[in-house]
Amino acid sequence: MSQFINDKDKIVTQAIDGLLQTTGHQQARLDGYPHIKVVLRADWKKSHVALVSGGGSGHEPSHAGFVGEGLLTAAVCGEVFASPSTDAVLAAILSVTSSSKGCLLIVKNYTGDRLNFGLAAERARALGLPVRMVVVGDDVALPELPQPRGVAGTLFVHKIAGALAASGSSLDDVASLAERIARGTVSIGMSLDTCTVPGSPKERRIDEGMAELGLGIHGEPGVQQVSYSDAQTAMDKVVETLSPHAPSGELVGLLNNLGGCTPLEMGILADALLRSKLGHRIKWMIGPAPLMTSLDMRGFSVSLYAPSADELTALQEPVECHAWPGFIATSPPKIIDLPKDGLRPVALPPSSDRQTRQWIEDSCRILMEAEAKLNDLDAKSGDGDTGSTLAKACHALNDNLESLPLAKRGDLFQAISQELSQSMGGSSGVLLAIFFAAAGDAVTTDSSIGQELLAGLERIKQVGGATLGDRTMIDALEPALRALDTSLSNAAIKGREGANATAAMTKARAGRASYVSEDNLVGHNDPGAEAVAILFEELAAKNQQ
Amino acid sequence: MSQFINDKDKIVTQAIDGLLQTTGHQQARLDGYPHIKVVLRADWKKSHVALVSGGGSGHEPSHAGFVGEGLLTAAVCGEVFASPSTDAVLAAILSVTSSSKGCLLIVKNYTGDRLNFGLAAERARALGLPVRMVVVGDDVALPELPQPRGVAGTLFVHKIAGALAASGSSLDDVASLAERIARGTVSIGMSLDTCTVPGSPKERRIDEGMAELGLGIHGEPGVQQVSYSDAQTAMDKVVETLSPHAPSGELVGLLNNLGGCTPLEMGILADALLRSKLGHRIKWMIGPAPLMTSLDMRGFSVSLYAPSADELTALQEPVECHAWPGFIATSPPKIIDLPKDGLRPVALPPSSDRQTRQWIEDSCRILMEAEAKLNDLDAKSGDGDTGSTLAKACHALNDNLESLPLAKRGDLFQAISQELSQSMGGSSGVLLAIFFAAAGDAVTTDSSIGQELLAGLERIKQVGGATLGDRTMIDALEPALRALDTSLSNAAIKGREGANATAAMTKARAGRASYVSEDNLVGHNDPGAEAVAILFEELAAKNQQ
Repeated sequence: MSQFINDKDKIVTQAIDGLLQTTGHQQARLDGYPHIKVVLRADWKKSHVALVSGGGSGHEPSHAGFVGEGLLTAAVCGEVFASPSTDAVLAAILSVTSSSKGCLLIVKNYTGDRLNFGLAAERARALGLPVRMVVVGDDVALPELPQPRGVAGTLFVHKIAGALAASGSSLDDVASLAERIARGTVSIGMSLDTCTVPGSPKERRIDEGMAELGLGIHGEPGVQQVSYSDAQTAMDKVVETLSPHAPSGELVGLLNNLGGCTPLEMGILADALLRSKLGHRIKWMIGPAPLMTSLDMRGFSVSLYAPSADELTALQEPVECHAWPGFIATSPPKIIDLPKDGLRPVALPPSSDRQTRQWIEDSCRILMEAEAKLNDLDAKSGDGDTGSTLAKACHALNDNLESLPLAKRGDLFQAISQELSQSMGGSSGVLLAIFFAAAGDAVTTDSSIGQELLAGLERIKQVGGATLGDRTMIDALEPALRALDTSLSNAAIKGREGANATAAMTKARAGRASYVSEDNLVGHNDPGAEAVAILFEELAAKNQQ
Repeated sequence: MSQFINDKDKIVTQAIDGLLQTTGHQQARLDGYPHIKVVLRADWKKSHVALVSGGGSGHEPSHAGFVGEGLLTAAVCGEVFASPSTDAVLAAILSVTSSSKGCLLIVKNYTGDRLNFGLAAERARALGLPVRMVVVGDDVALPELPQPRGVAGTLFVHKIAGALAASGSSLDDVASLAERIARGTVSIGMSLDTCTVPGSPKERRIDEGMAELGLGIHGEPGVQQVSYSDAQTAMDKVVETLSPHAPSGELVGLLNNLGGCTPLEMGILADALLRSKLGHRIKWMIGPAPLMTSLDMRGFSVSLYAPSADELTALQEPVECHAWPGFIATSPPKIIDLPKDGLRPVALPPSSDRQTRQWIEDSCRILMEAEAKLNDLDAKSGDGDTGSTLAKACHALNDNLESLPLAKRGDLFQAISQELSQSMGGSSGVLLAIFFAAAGDAVTTDSSIGQELLAGLERIKQVGGATLGDRTMIDALEPALRALDTSLSNAAIKGREGANATAAMTKARAGRASYVSEDNLVGHNDPGAEAVAILFEELAAKNQQ
């Protein structure tokens, strides 16, 4: 699969420049491209202990995204999945470190990073700068391994040490705390797919129905493949693997998106983590969020730490990096009762009115009788059910005449709206429900029925987005309603003219007919417009008898 | 490919619950699962105009992630890519709307959403609540389409109307402004791959080397497929398509990750956008960030808006939703000069010392003579280059004897460190460079050479992570150095004992030999340890002559 990159050699430098241009002047970079790729705080005054981290790229927002007050002072960025050079690390140290305050290097446990950061530290020390280095190896995937990898748990070190450094603590204090956190942090990852290294073909290693457990963040295979069924079972397996290594006491959980999970999946995984065996002990969360990614890997990792009271305070300190998702006390979802009134339709008190009843009965009969004709017409441009849909609604309305508030027109329109939204279905049902509701809303002591129904029409034009000339029922309904207050006969004439005009409209601009070719439309009236025309014609004819 | 989901019917509800448990008590949900999935502000007092949006899920963080002060009051969540029901929308309106302040519905232009939000609005109006609705159709993919889709530009409406509502403006004012923004916003998207709808097989529609331009956010095909070469050309094409529709004046650019792009790619795309033809007019940016995603689609969209002065202020107002990436004035990357001193090694003034020179010449000769033997030994457990690597470094050192500060041991160790890091290469070169740098650091007026070199050893144990018994050169070096201050002969005896002991170490715990099976290790000395033993033995032998 392609990726949105340009020159493969400029992936990291262009991505850093993109970042710097869109984060204001909070961050800067050293003038060392292409070999020295260092992002540092633009406002740094060397008045505190500097925190420098970094490593290969491909783990964004780590580490450049965490450069800011309360987190890192500088991030040294290697090429994708490759350690930065000793020179790059040294440049970072020299740029941010004062001989009085010193610098802490936070390094994930990979040989290349240890060596390059380690040698840079020696060089800086030879120049008289106090430099300490903490190596984080939080991955419990291979517990017998003397050199566990450093993964997302490193973020605990950044945050807590970052807060301590910002408060003015000494290098020795910051470094000791960082060592303590690094020792106390455990992590493990799981993935459903491998990552795609830019410019390389994707390795298809994980079969459908399988997941890798205990993987690193550089695309290396996980310690084992396990069968995968669902998110909860997967999370339970992760928690089971992590549990023997988890510190005792109340825990912070850090839920990291390895890059390719959707926010929906991460939400489900957060829910699964809190439902897991350790869930009741996880009192705070960082994430779910992409924190220490592995390019586009569809996977996640869980890191745990049991903070002291002071560390808890440090974790809560706000930071200015947007990539930091915050530190949240977990809580059951807050659930609010559904509104008591209004959600269920209130049956309006039935009332009787002989003439109104007659109108409705006539209208229903006319539309029911037109069922086959309207279906035939609809079959030419749609799915052939306009007649049936209308007939079904008319049957339901006819059956419920006794319960309608026939004597109060505003209420009646609202009741018809309720009835149509329940019995008619589909887009047309909703549109007619909106038509009658808005018409009901427009009923005042001195409004005419034409004005009221035109208000309904305006609303469905707004909501449905169709207008005159779009080959819909509006082409008949609008002229008919505009004439209605003069006489029903005029309305019938105008409705018929409007309906017939749709036969010449070769391009439907709304509704399903808009997907149909011109040839299938020309010469046939729109079925919705025809229904309106028939209704008004026959009502007018009966009225004149 | 599998996804981290459980029951397909619970994707959205479990994801919402995961969200609510990890965002503190800022958000709540209505007690309407499974049909009514409404996320709303937990602190809402109905004292301002309520802003309600929503639609199908799969666009996270839209819309639940934008529920909070200054943005949305409530989000109505449908199933993945399906409109929520009228009842769900009505429940949201009723829960957050006061009859005095009212409610604005912000709806993306899809028939299902228009109809369900539209009918819910009618129902709410019938209950006496003032409700206005704005429909956003910002997609310019099909400019002749009378009903353009609503995509990421909707976020402009949320933010600006959100700020106005929070400031206490009237419903009419908020709605008019929202209409104005909706009319003035344009967007278009591009993708390299389709999205994976949970529970459905992935449609492979876009061939390698192609991209889709003008796609929606529901997996529907783009308006056209275009050839894809690189990020800049792709962005230029997007900008070219967008330009004729772009408002005049200074622009806000909203760069949206459609879900599957890595942060590296988004950084590169941000850089490309600002380098594009419109780049100089984009004075502010929202993102790059996932804002209105389409599940895991590897694509992006660009939205543009030309804000008035008041709208600019509204866009800048801080909000409490972490998903909101902020509003940033674009600026060229801030570039800081590389440190002037310390980065390039300072040549220490050469000096002469006959005895020291002899020691170095002897050491180099011994190790160069051992090249073949050490290579043979290394071939049994590694890549057979230990001898050559050391010999190469010794040649370089020998050639540079004239430039070394032979008379000052501290400086000499630093100079050897510099020389080894430049000429030796590989992990061992860095480790020996660290060894000599730390040894040089330990030189004081009354330190012994044994103490100094032991300080170097301690540092490489820390940086390299190996210790005694790990089958490395340390197994010979540590006992030799511990004996060095008594006599060179003792050091040689201890070094040899240590090197020979490595032949019985069946599990290497550091370095490349840790990947080699027991059978390949047993009976052979570690080549690094052997090199140390040979060096001390032959130096001692020469010393006794």
